[in-house]
Amino acid sequence: MTISFARGIPAPECLPVEELADCAAAALRRDGSAILSYGSTLGYAPLREWIAERHGVEPARVFVTNGSLQAFHLVLSSLGEGRVIVERPTYDRPRKILTAEGRELAEVDIDEDGLDVDELERVCASGPPPALLYTIPTFQNPAGVTLSAARREQLTRLIRDRSLPVLEDDPYGLVRFEGQPLPSLFELEGGEHVMYGSSFSKTVAPGLRVGYLVLPQELAARVEARAVGTYISPPFLTQATVFEFLSRGLFESNVARVNGLLKLRRDAMLAALERDFPETARWSHPQGGYFLWLDLPPEIRADDLQVAAEAVGVTFVKGSDFFTGHLAGEHEARFAYSFVSPEEIAEGVSRLAPLLSGAAAPAPSL
Amino acid sequence: MTISFARGIPAPECLPVEELADCAAAALRRDGSAILSYGSTLGYAPLREWIAERHGVEPARVFVTNGSLQAFHLVLSSLGEGRVIVERPTYDRPRKILTAEGRELAEVDIDEDGLDVDELERVCASGPPPALLYTIPTFQNPAGVTLSAARREQLTRLIRDRSLPVLEDDPYGLVRFEGQPLPSLFELEGGEHVMYGSSFSKTVAPGLRVGYLVLPQELAARVEARAVGTYISPPFLTQATVFEFLSRGLFESNVARVNGLLKLRRDAMLAALERDFPETARWSHPQGGYFLWLDLPPEIRADDLQVAAEAVGVTFVKGSDFFTGHLAGEHEARFAYSFVSPEEIAEGVSRLAPLLSGAAAPAPSL
Repeated sequence: MTISFARGIPAPECLPVEELADCAAAALRRDGSAILSYGSTLGYAPLREWIAERHGVEPARVFVTNGSLQAFHLVLSSLGEGRVIVERPTYDRPRKILTAEGRELAEVDIDEDGLDVDELERVCASGPPPALLYTIPTFQNPAGVTLSAARREQLTRLIRDRSLPVLEDDPYGLVRFEGQPLPSLFELEGGEHVMYGSSFSKTVAPGLRVGYLVLPQELAARVEARAVGTYISPPFLTQATVFEFLSRGLFESNVARVNGLLKLRRDAMLAALERDFPETARWSHPQGGYFLWLDLPPEIRADDLQVAAEAVGVTFVKGSDFFTGHLAGEHEARFAYSFVSPEEIAEGVSRLAPLLSGAAAPAPSL
Repeated sequence: MTISFARGIPAPECLPVEELADCAAAALRRDGSAILSYGSTLGYAPLREWIAERHGVEPARVFVTNGSLQAFHLVLSSLGEGRVIVERPTYDRPRKILTAEGRELAEVDIDEDGLDVDELERVCASGPPPALLYTIPTFQNPAGVTLSAARREQLTRLIRDRSLPVLEDDPYGLVRFEGQPLPSLFELEGGEHVMYGSSFSKTVAPGLRVGYLVLPQELAARVEARAVGTYISPPFLTQATVFEFLSRGLFESNVARVNGLLKLRRDAMLAALERDFPETARWSHPQGGYFLWLDLPPEIRADDLQVAAEAVGVTFVKGSDFFTGHLAGEHEARFAYSFVSPEEIAEGVSRLAPLLSGAAAPAPSL
């Protein structure tokens, strides 16, 4: 069986199926008429109120959508002209959306402390004001790195000084296994220039497709008009099911349970890499999230390794998929530890190891 | 309390809340891992298979979305260049989408037998081949008229002769109170040029947001790529809940029950209009659907009536909202009988009647 380090999705045992079955039925019995009819395009009101309270904003600023990516789509078309700055490397889906929308992209490097704010400053200074900075400060996809406390302060100053619009994408913030949580950019800056996006995909279930953005109120109103024209209103059943899950106090304990399952997987991957991979390979050591990032030995090309890995039944995403150009990430890779079991992780890494040392690949076990 | 003839939505008692609560929980218990994870962007596979069987096509041609309007959005951007032909009057939301997408619109009149196919022929002949005909042949929104059997044959010939791409929007086809169902254009033409759209909004519940299109297979594949970039996958919980409802055999009986409730409302509206409205007003007599269309007395402007109606606590949509220009529909109106009770319908019509005869409006009852 193929072992997937490619899929950035939770393992099946992370999904609280029974609890959600109860919550869906209870939500419909409690508020069926509202859930089963049209309503606010911005989302199910009780859930918006919960999110608003959590982030200390008015509910009118909360926009709940079919995953946070759809909200990004709608917001993007409401932003001003100009370049969009993304991290290098960055999550491939938003980058594809930006490219499809014809946006000029600028990239700023990240290192183990996250976005290089000095470089960002230079990029901002080198042309007209950018339309947006898109950033994943915590447990970044794909690199797994987290913006340090000092960099967060530095970035906040830059945002204020330049009135730089920012979308802080934070799907993994609560998926922390150890270490102290850091304040979000949204909290530090006060939510004037920073929009905050998150979802319940990693903390409840991705298939529910419940994501949200906290927007400036005026922008929320503009985006609402666009969303009405696209889908009238979102499905309230999924949003009401999440709200029921939250109201019953199941959220915090589920996050703790899921983080425990994911920590086992991260530990298994770090241990297996340490044991089996050559010393010329390096990898990030994330304190949370789904991914780690590998610098392969310099003689190994990620696309060659991908082909060889497939022959031994292991998949991963090659680094170049997360860069704009095709000349970057050639010796890098993203390994997701979220989906497969700790045993499969150990097995997958041991299948890959001979491919990195140049030894002959073992016959695939079928 | 305001009596709404504006809202084209089902009355609350049409919604099968208890059954759907059971179905949602059962669907999650049966297939929770799939429902709560990512999956096919084209929709929940068992539901797609059900729809495919109903329409006699391969499941690969079925695209299930957050209401059929969202699918229309995605399909539109995959169509070729050129004019889009709409009915005159037509449903305002697709027209707004078309305008927002920068499409040139051409309009073709409808009468009590639906689309004027002779005029359509002339419009098609008067320029380059149109990109699409958007039509609601059965219980049209807003006019409530149905394309006759003879016109369906005539239109099918035209579609074949001209290879005219058509989107047949059919949300109301099953909402029939009397008379024989007519074959869809999709059935008559064979689904080569005709795309078929419908939803479970009128037959199960609108808030579930489960609509679908049956597309040519090649187009479905192209639209899938666009949808992946927008929202990865749709929410499966709503689609699986509908599938559970269908599997349990609740669909046909629910449609019969809902049609019974709606027929009472249509009858109440026709009776009240007959009783209270002046002879110089005329209205359609739909055999199903949600709406009837009024030609007001020639001295009455719909926008004036709307203002006066609001003062007596009645709302409706003025005819001009369903035309492209502002010089049409000025003495016409759409009355929805779907939402309010038969008693409220009688009361609403009686409040409006004095406004049409020029008599003084009664004081609003609060």
